[in-house]
Amino acid sequence: MRDHRVAPPESLTPTRRVDVTRVAGPDVTHTTDVAAAEEPLDVRLHGRSFAVIMRTPGNDKALAAGFLLSERIIRSADDIGAIEHCRHPDQTKAHHVVDVFLVGDAAARVPVMLEQRRQVIANSSCGVCGRATIDELLGEVTPLDVDPVQRPVALDVVKALPDRLRARQSTFDETGGLHAAAICSAGGEILAVAEDVGRHNAVDKVVGRLLLEAPSTGYSATRTPHPELRILIVSGRVSFEIVQKAWIAAIPIVAAISAPTSLAVDLAKAAGVTLIGFLRPGGLNIYAGATRIATV
Amino acid sequence: MRDHRVAPPESLTPTRRVDVTRVAGPDVTHTTDVAAAEEPLDVRLHGRSFAVIMRTPGNDKALAAGFLLSERIIRSADDIGAIEHCRHPDQTKAHHVVDVFLVGDAAARVPVMLEQRRQVIANSSCGVCGRATIDELLGEVTPLDVDPVQRPVALDVVKALPDRLRARQSTFDETGGLHAAAICSAGGEILAVAEDVGRHNAVDKVVGRLLLEAPSTGYSATRTPHPELRILIVSGRVSFEIVQKAWIAAIPIVAAISAPTSLAVDLAKAAGVTLIGFLRPGGLNIYAGATRIATV
Repeated sequence: MRDHRVAPPESLTPTRRVDVTRVAGPDVTHTTDVAAAEEPLDVRLHGRSFAVIMRTPGNDKALAAGFLLSERIIRSADDIGAIEHCRHPDQTKAHHVVDVFLVGDAAARVPVMLEQRRQVIANSSCGVCGRATIDELLGEVTPLDVDPVQRPVALDVVKALPDRLRARQSTFDETGGLHAAAICSAGGEILAVAEDVGRHNAVDKVVGRLLLEAPSTGYSATRTPHPELRILIVSGRVSFEIVQKAWIAAIPIVAAISAPTSLAVDLAKAAGVTLIGFLRPGGLNIYAGATRIATV
Repeated sequence: MRDHRVAPPESLTPTRRVDVTRVAGPDVTHTTDVAAAEEPLDVRLHGRSFAVIMRTPGNDKALAAGFLLSERIIRSADDIGAIEHCRHPDQTKAHHVVDVFLVGDAAARVPVMLEQRRQVIANSSCGVCGRATIDELLGEVTPLDVDPVQRPVALDVVKALPDRLRARQSTFDETGGLHAAAICSAGGEILAVAEDVGRHNAVDKVVGRLLLEAPSTGYSATRTPHPELRILIVSGRVSFEIVQKAWIAAIPIVAAISAPTSLAVDLAKAAGVTLIGFLRPGGLNIYAGATRIATV
């Protein structure tokens, strides 16, 4: 009798082991850490791609159903005829695709919704839509050019960044509700800082400040990192999207107060971006590009 | 001589005062709190709407520039000819519109980009796109129907929710990188729980679980709240989008461990949703719909 109880591929678990260079006080160790998994889920309506959602694997069918309710594609459970993972024999791909079939009035609206959505997916430049596997996502990433700055950033500079950011977070202290982001020099000087309810907005704001001041700073967001603009620091967690923004802006080091996702680590490696997480006064984790940090 | 140094309207500051019922130990006070402001910004290309971004007012021109870089609409600062707030005489509206004019090759691509984007905005059902002011956003919200459950939820039940959620957050404890959401009964029983790198995904997952189990639970996501599905609890902050999802799913109480945004408060009031923030063992803040909680 064939055993159907096959363990899921690692990419389907909600966490993933990642390599890390851990700095704790004077100690530097090379070890592994557990990161929250982040992978694209392709939600299909009647066999055609409707949306690609960056999510942590698990409860995928529930995610698809809740997403379709939030988007007002369905009005209640009665609109769902069937909702299943794709039956493709390659399970590593099939588990990242959920097929949804609607019934009744909702089913009648599917062709129109798909046609409208097709425009969204085809034309989006968000870097995710239409690419349903990590390999497809990362395959198109060209790493940053060779860095004109060869001297690594001092560890003490990196460790001091959270306090420096905090000192500039005027609104955060008042509301507890805002994310912060800043661009820093290799010496730890904060060159631009912004706060926003949206983590991605805070990053767009600081990068945008560099762009608006480009005539005086010479910043051009090309593939070659600017010698003075070294570090993007963010107040919370770091997902795929934040590393992508740093890569597009050619900021070579991303430092986050909290945890990275698995895909943030993958993209940082592919894009030649240094990724630091769990940045605290006593230590930090380096998940990619450790040579830009002077750990010894 | 006319004085041009006019103070910005309150809606343009990064924070906003909101009314709150504060429960701290045995004390219940009616006071005001400061919430992070969240308002839609309309980014226009050559005079036509390109994207509406939910953001905290401030650094709007930088946000528009950084957003256009992240979306690959521009490649460098050289592509930007001008970037200004709208010059409409009604400043409360004009300050939520940024006009961007591109030059060179980027300018030549604008008509195509706008046409593609028009499809996105016209067809999106996200509840934000195409509506550039809060009044427009909230004007279309019909409140939840009269609640079939008249008995308020006990304060001790609400205060115990964070510990109950935490006990079910297996992956969070391991990675520090996941948001959690749960649906609870009036007695505090957790009926569905999910974790995800995306806060909105965690909410979609628990609502989706209710939908998938609807044949046995009778849940239908209509405007009338289900008598057993009372509370949506989320592990972090609560923005407009989270309250919107609860409203669409007809879950009448939203409780967050951390802060709400100003627009989350506004929407909760308009939608007839109870909104609780800063939920800690010792106390909590009620920002809307306090009658559903037994504070005395």
